[in-house]
Amino acid sequence: MPTAQRISTVAVTPVAFRDLPLLNTVGVHEPFAIRAIVEVRTDEGLYGLGETYGDTEHLNRLRRAAQRITGTDVWDLNGLAREVRVSLEGDTGTGGHGMAGMVTNSSTADAVLSPFEVACLDIQGKATGLPVSSLLGGAVRDRVDYSAYLFYKWAGHPGAEPDEWGAALDPDGLVAQARRMVGEYGFSAIKVKGGVFEPDAEIAAIKALAAEFPGVPLRLDPNAAWTVDTSIRVGQELDGILEYLEDPTEGIEGMAEVARKVPMPLATNMCMVSFADLEPGIRAGSVSVVLSDHHFWGGLQRSRLLAGICDTFGMKLSMHSNSHLGISLAAMTHLASATPNLTYACDTHWPWKDASEDVVVPGALTFSDGAVVVPTTPGLGVELDRDRLGAQHEQYLRSGITDRDDTGYMKTIDPSYELVKPRW
Amino acid sequence: MPTAQRISTVAVTPVAFRDLPLLNTVGVHEPFAIRAIVEVRTDEGLYGLGETYGDTEHLNRLRRAAQRITGTDVWDLNGLAREVRVSLEGDTGTGGHGMAGMVTNSSTADAVLSPFEVACLDIQGKATGLPVSSLLGGAVRDRVDYSAYLFYKWAGHPGAEPDEWGAALDPDGLVAQARRMVGEYGFSAIKVKGGVFEPDAEIAAIKALAAEFPGVPLRLDPNAAWTVDTSIRVGQELDGILEYLEDPTEGIEGMAEVARKVPMPLATNMCMVSFADLEPGIRAGSVSVVLSDHHFWGGLQRSRLLAGICDTFGMKLSMHSNSHLGISLAAMTHLASATPNLTYACDTHWPWKDASEDVVVPGALTFSDGAVVVPTTPGLGVELDRDRLGAQHEQYLRSGITDRDDTGYMKTIDPSYELVKPRW
Ligand SMILES: [Mg+2]
Ligand SMILES: [Mg+2]
Repeated sequence: MPTAQRISTVAVTPVAFRDLPLLNTVGVHEPFAIRAIVEVRTDEGLYGLGETYGDTEHLNRLRRAAQRITGTDVWDLNGLAREVRVSLEGDTGTGGHGMAGMVTNSSTADAVLSPFEVACLDIQGKATGLPVSSLLGGAVRDRVDYSAYLFYKWAGHPGAEPDEWGAALDPDGLVAQARRMVGEYGFSAIKVKGGVFEPDAEIAAIKALAAEFPGVPLRLDPNAAWTVDTSIRVGQELDGILEYLEDPTEGIEGMAEVARKVPMPLATNMCMVSFADLEPGIRAGSVSVVLSDHHFWGGLQRSRLLAGICDTFGMKLSMHSNSHLGISLAAMTHLASATPNLTYACDTHWPWKDASEDVVVPGALTFSDGAVVVPTTPGLGVELDRDRLGAQHEQYLRSGITDRDDTGYMKTIDPSYELVKPRW
Repeated sequence: MPTAQRISTVAVTPVAFRDLPLLNTVGVHEPFAIRAIVEVRTDEGLYGLGETYGDTEHLNRLRRAAQRITGTDVWDLNGLAREVRVSLEGDTGTGGHGMAGMVTNSSTADAVLSPFEVACLDIQGKATGLPVSSLLGGAVRDRVDYSAYLFYKWAGHPGAEPDEWGAALDPDGLVAQARRMVGEYGFSAIKVKGGVFEPDAEIAAIKALAAEFPGVPLRLDPNAAWTVDTSIRVGQELDGILEYLEDPTEGIEGMAEVARKVPMPLATNMCMVSFADLEPGIRAGSVSVVLSDHHFWGGLQRSRLLAGICDTFGMKLSMHSNSHLGISLAAMTHLASATPNLTYACDTHWPWKDASEDVVVPGALTFSDGAVVVPTTPGLGVELDRDRLGAQHEQYLRSGITDRDDTGYMKTIDPSYELVKPRW
C-alpha cells in the first residue's frame, strides 16, 4: 500500500477575492483580500491543499520552501519543518505576516510551514481514506460552531456602489448586521471588531447587541487600540455582558495588568502569537483564553500542541480568523473538531466573502445553525476547482494588491488618517 | 481501504520475568518483575501491542478499561481517552502505579490509557504500512541512544546462587559493572541508581566512574533520598562531573531550592510526573530536564505533548525506564526517534533482563554502539510470541508476586530495614 508518499511538485498560487470595506483600528479592508493557495503533489499522484497569506514577502518564502521540500515524505512532518527552517536561513525580514501590522511577532517559520503541513495532512488522509480529523486524534464533535463576526463598515468602497451589507457605523447598524448574519447562518455567538470608534460608542454597541440577543455570548476585539486604563474602564463597564474581551491593550504586561482588574476573561491573538510568547505570557498571567490560528501557529499538529499547552496551563482556547477561503475553513473545522478543549465558537470571516469566488469545489462545507459539519471524506474533504483557481489568480494579477495594507488604503481615502497606538 | 479499524477484543495478560537484586532507596528488586501485556484486536483482523505495569490495582483498571474501549476506532485516540476516563469514574484508589512507591502522583488515567494508545498506534501502522515513528511526525534519527543503567546489587537473591552480574556494593563493583555493560552494549552515557549508600560513598563511586570513563556523560539518581542540604552538598561536590543530577530531593519546592544552588542541571521523573505537575514545577523552576515516560504520561502522543511543552518552556528531555520487555522498548524507541528535542540517551533496564524471557519474537530490536535501530516495518515492528506470552504468564502465576514491593521484599531479608525519607 503506497502510504509513503514523496512530494514531487509544489505549486504556490496567489489569489484575490473581493472584500468589503470592513473597518478596524489600523484602517479598512481593501477591495480585494489576497491569499496564497498551496498545492502539493506526490510521486504517487495524490495532491493536497493548503491556504495562507498572500503578501509578497510571504510568497517569496513559500516559494523558497517549496523548492526545499520536494522529495520529503508527507508523513515526515519533522523533516518538513526542518526543510522549511533551512529554506529560511538568513532570512531576517519581519514583514509578510499578512495581518496589516496587527500581528507582527508570530513565527515566520511556523507561518511558512503551515500550508505545507496542512497539504501533507490532506494527502495523508487521501492515502489512508481517513479524514484529517482522524489524523489529529479523532473528532470529538461532528459539527464545529462558528461565531458571527461583526464589523463596522462603510456602505461600500469609496467610488463604488453600496455593497449588499450596507453601512454599519453605530449601534443600530451593528445590530442590523448581526440580525442579518445570525438570521442567515444561525450563529449562536457574536464577535465585534472594535477599536474603530471611541470606546463609549463601542460600549453602546455591545449593550445594544446584548439587548437584542439576550443570552448570546458576545466578544469585543479592539485590536489593542486602548491604554491599560481605558481597557479597565471598558472591561468594568461591560461586566456581565462579554463572554471575553479580546486584546484590549498591547503587550504581555499591559494585558496582565488589565486581566487583574476586569471581571471577564481576556483573550488574545496579539500578545501571545508564537510558542516563544507562551512562557512569558503565562508567567505574567496575560490572558485566560488563547485564540489559536493554524496559519501562524505552524499548522494543525502544532496547533494541537498549543491546545495541549492551554489545557495544561489552565487557559481556554478559541480560534482566530482572517479573510479566508474554503481550504482554510476545512482545515479550521477539522482542527476544531479534534480539539477537545476548543470550547468556544470559532471566528470566521466567511460571511463577508462572495461564495462564488472560492477555489474549492462548492458544497463540501456548509453552515447550518452556526456550525460547519465536519467532512468525513478522506483528507480535508475539499477539492480544488482549477478553473476558479485560475480566475482568482487572474484577479490577483489585476487587483494590483500585493501586500495587505489596511492603513495605506485608508489614507488614500482619508489623508488625515493616522495610525495611533493606543488610540484611546 | 480498511484503515478505519474498530477494536473487537482486548486481552490483558500479566507476565513475570526474572529480575536481579537491584538496590534502590526503597529496597531491592524482587526475584521477578511483573508487567501487563495488552493485545488489542480489530474487526479487520489486525492486532496491536502495549505493555504496562502489572500491579493488581492497575490490572483491574486495565480490564475495566478494556471492556469500555471495545468498538472504538483505533484512529479515534480522543475517543479512546474518553472511554478510559469513563471506565475510571468513581475509582479513587491511589495504588497500582507500578513503581514501588517511588512515583505516586502520576495520573491514573494516563497510566491506564498508555498501553491501549500504544496498541492502537501499532494497529494504525500495520493498517497503513507505516512505522509508528511516522505516525508520530517522522523519525529524526534512525538510531536511538540508550544509557548504561548501573545499580548497586547483591551477588544474587538471598538463598540463590550468585547471578551472572555478581555483587556491586562499592565504587570498584560499580566500575566493573559499567565496564561489562558498556563493553557488551556500547553505551556512551552512564546512569547510576543511587540513594542506597551514604552520599559520600556514592560520590566516590561517581568519581571512580569518571576516572574510568573520561568524557562519558554520567548521571546519578538517588530517588529523592536526600535533604535539600545534602543535595546541594553532593551537587557542588560533583561539579563538572555529572551531566545531570536526577531527583536528589523530594518535591517541587525542594528541587527548586537545590536547582538554585548546584551547578549542574536537575532532572526529574518524581516531582513532575503528570500534566498537572508541569505548571507548578515550571513556575518554581524545579528542573531543567524532564524524564519522559510514555507509560505514565498517557502514551506516545501525549508524550509528544510533553516534549512540546519542554521545548516551549526551555526544558530539556530525557527518558525514564522501569524493568520492561520488548514491546516497551519498541515504543520507547519509536517515540525517541520522532522527538527532535529528546537529546539525551534514554534510560533502559534492558541489560538486566534475561533475553530468553521476552514476549516478542526475538531479533526485531538489537543494541549496537549503545543504540537501538528504529524499526521501519509497519507499526511498532515487534510481533507477539504467543508461546512465550503463555510461559511468562505461567511464571507470573507461579511467582506469587501480584504487586511490586521492593520495600516488603527487603524487609523479609533485613527485618531492621526501614523506609526513611529523606534518608540522608
Ligand atoms: Mg483578535
Ligand atoms: Mg529517576
